[in-house]
Amino acid sequence: MEHLRWDGDRLIVLDQRYLPEKVKYVECKTVEDVAKAIKDMVVRGAPLIGISAAYGLVLARIKNQNLEEASYLLKAARPTAVNLAWAVDEFLRREKSGRDPKEIAEELFLEDLKTNKAIGENGTEVVPPNARVLTHCNAGALATAGFGTALGVIRRAKAKIKMVYADETRPYLQGSRLTAWELAEDDIPVTVIADNMAGYLMKQGKVDLVIVGADRIAKNGDTANKIGTYSLAVLAHSHGIPFYVAAPSTTFDFSIDNGTQIPIEERSSKELAEFNGIKLISDKCQVYNPAFDVTPHRFITGIITERGILRAPYSVYLKRLLGN
Amino acid sequence: MEHLRWDGDRLIVLDQRYLPEKVKYVECKTVEDVAKAIKDMVVRGAPLIGISAAYGLVLARIKNQNLEEASYLLKAARPTAVNLAWAVDEFLRREKSGRDPKEIAEELFLEDLKTNKAIGENGTEVVPPNARVLTHCNAGALATAGFGTALGVIRRAKAKIKMVYADETRPYLQGSRLTAWELAEDDIPVTVIADNMAGYLMKQGKVDLVIVGADRIAKNGDTANKIGTYSLAVLAHSHGIPFYVAAPSTTFDFSIDNGTQIPIEERSSKELAEFNGIKLISDKCQVYNPAFDVTPHRFITGIITERGILRAPYSVYLKRLLGN
Repeated sequence: MEHLRWDGDRLIVLDQRYLPEKVKYVECKTVEDVAKAIKDMVVRGAPLIGISAAYGLVLARIKNQNLEEASYLLKAARPTAVNLAWAVDEFLRREKSGRDPKEIAEELFLEDLKTNKAIGENGTEVVPPNARVLTHCNAGALATAGFGTALGVIRRAKAKIKMVYADETRPYLQGSRLTAWELAEDDIPVTVIADNMAGYLMKQGKVDLVIVGADRIAKNGDTANKIGTYSLAVLAHSHGIPFYVAAPSTTFDFSIDNGTQIPIEERSSKELAEFNGIKLISDKCQVYNPAFDVTPHRFITGIITERGILRAPYSVYLKRLLGN
Repeated sequence: MEHLRWDGDRLIVLDQRYLPEKVKYVECKTVEDVAKAIKDMVVRGAPLIGISAAYGLVLARIKNQNLEEASYLLKAARPTAVNLAWAVDEFLRREKSGRDPKEIAEELFLEDLKTNKAIGENGTEVVPPNARVLTHCNAGALATAGFGTALGVIRRAKAKIKMVYADETRPYLQGSRLTAWELAEDDIPVTVIADNMAGYLMKQGKVDLVIVGADRIAKNGDTANKIGTYSLAVLAHSHGIPFYVAAPSTTFDFSIDNGTQIPIEERSSKELAEFNGIKLISDKCQVYNPAFDVTPHRFITGIITERGILRAPYSVYLKRLLGN
C-alpha cells in the first residue's frame, strides 16, 4: 500500500486517521491542502511530514505562489518535529540552483528511505536474540518514506524478534492502528497493550528493550517524542531496561542546547473527549492534551542514526559522528 | 442520580458502561442477572460489586435457590477484588441468624457509605493546601455505596483541592467517563489526561500527590488495583511524590502474605481492539489486556482506611489498627 504518491499535478496521501478499518486517500492540489493534511494528521510522523511539505512546495511552485509564504505556512502546521522545518529549508536550498522541484522532493523521499535502511542496519546490534521489544506510537514505514526508524530497526532485526509490544498510544492510537497493523502485514509478531500496561509488562520481565522514534533532539541528547515516551523512559530506567531512540540525523536541532527549548504542541481536547461522535468526557471537565513530551538524555541508552549509534555524552558523539 | 436501588423484587443498577453520554439502567431479577452485570462491568468498583453481590443473594433467597451455588456464581464473576468474596461471606454469616436478607444487604450498603466517609475524614490530613491530586480509574461514589474511597478523600478535602487530574484509564475509560463526571457534578475542578501523560505532568511539577483505590491488599501492603496503578506508583516514586491508597479494611486479604498471590483478571481483547463497532486493531495482531496490576508496598506512602492511615511496615500497622 502506497502512503504517499505524486500523481501528475497533485500529491495523493493515505489518510492515516482511518487505518486499519478503512483505506482512504486524500488528494492535495495546493500547498494549503498539504498544510491542512499535516495539521489534521492525515499524514503524520516527523520524516513523513517533512517529505509531504517538500511536495507542498512543489505545488506552490506549480501555482506560482510565493515560496517564502508557502514555507511559513508549512512550518507552522505542526511545531514540534524539526524534520518539517529541515525539509522545507533543504528543498529551498536545493531549488535555488534552478533544479526541477518535483525531482528535489523525490530525492528527499528516496534519501529518507535510504536513511531508514541505514538506521535499521546500525540498530540491529542492540537487539538481542529472542528479543521482546516495546515501542510507542508509530515510528514505522507509515511515519517515513518507508521502512521506518524504530520499526526499521525491528524490521532489519526481524529474525531476532520474539515479540513486539506496541503501546496503543492515546489519544490518536498510532500504536494499535498503525504500528500493530504494519508489523502484522510484515509477519512480525506483535501484541498491543494499553499505554498504562507498560510498567506491569516490565515488572514481569517481559521487555528486553525499548525503541522509539523522535521528533526533535537537542544538542545534549534530550529528545522530544510522542507523549508517553518520557513515562516509558523513566519506567525502563527503573527496571534496568535499555531505552533507545532511532531517528535520522536531521532530527537533531543544533540551535538548542537542551530539551527545555523544544516547543510542545498542545492539540484539541476533542481527541480525548470524543470518539467517533461518542462523548467520553462531560463538558464540565477540562482536558490537557500535549502531543509530545521531552525525555532527558540521562534516560536514553543510545540514539540510533544513519551515521551510527550515539551514546552519552551525546555532545561529544555528535561532533564525532555528525560534525564532520 | 442513584446508581444502585432495590425495587420491591429486583435490583436496579445504573449501567456504568454508557456514562456520561447515556443514563441507562439495568434490572436484575435473578442472581444470574447480578453475576452477569458484575462480569460485564455494568456495575464495577471493588466495594460496589460486593454490595451488588449481597443483593444477588437476596434474589437467590427470594427464588429459593441454593445459596452456596449462588455464592460460587457471584464470587466467580470477577476474580481480583476481594471485597466481592468478603461481602458474599459476610452476607451468609449474618443471614445464618435468620435475619431478613434484604435488611442485611441494606446494612452492608450503609456500612460501606459510613466507611467511605471515615476514609475521607482520615485521609484529609495527607492533602496539602492548593493540592493538585492525580488519580487513576474510578474509586468514587460510583465504585462504592457512595462518597468513594480515593474520591472520598478528595471530596472531604474539597476546600484544599486546586485540581484533580484524572487518568482516562484505558481500556474502559473509568477516569474520563466516571471520575471526571462525578467530580465535575460536585464542582471539584478536574482535568482529564491520557494515561501516558502522567509522567510528563509529574516532571512539570504539577502533581502534589497521587491517591488511588484498591481491589485487594496483601498482608505486607502489596496492592492490586486497576492496570496502570503500578506504572503511576513507580513514576511517583521517581519524582518524589507521595503515593496513597484509599480503601476499606475489607480490601485486606489476610490469607496472603504478598502481592504475587493475587489473581489478576485478564479481560477480552475486544476492550482494546474495538470501540463502538470501529475496529482499532487488525485481526492479525495479538492483544494483552490484564485488568489489574500489583504495586509493591515499598512504593506506597500510606494506606488510608476507615480505621486510620497505615504506613510501612504495613504488617505491624495492620496488627495495631485492624487486628484488635
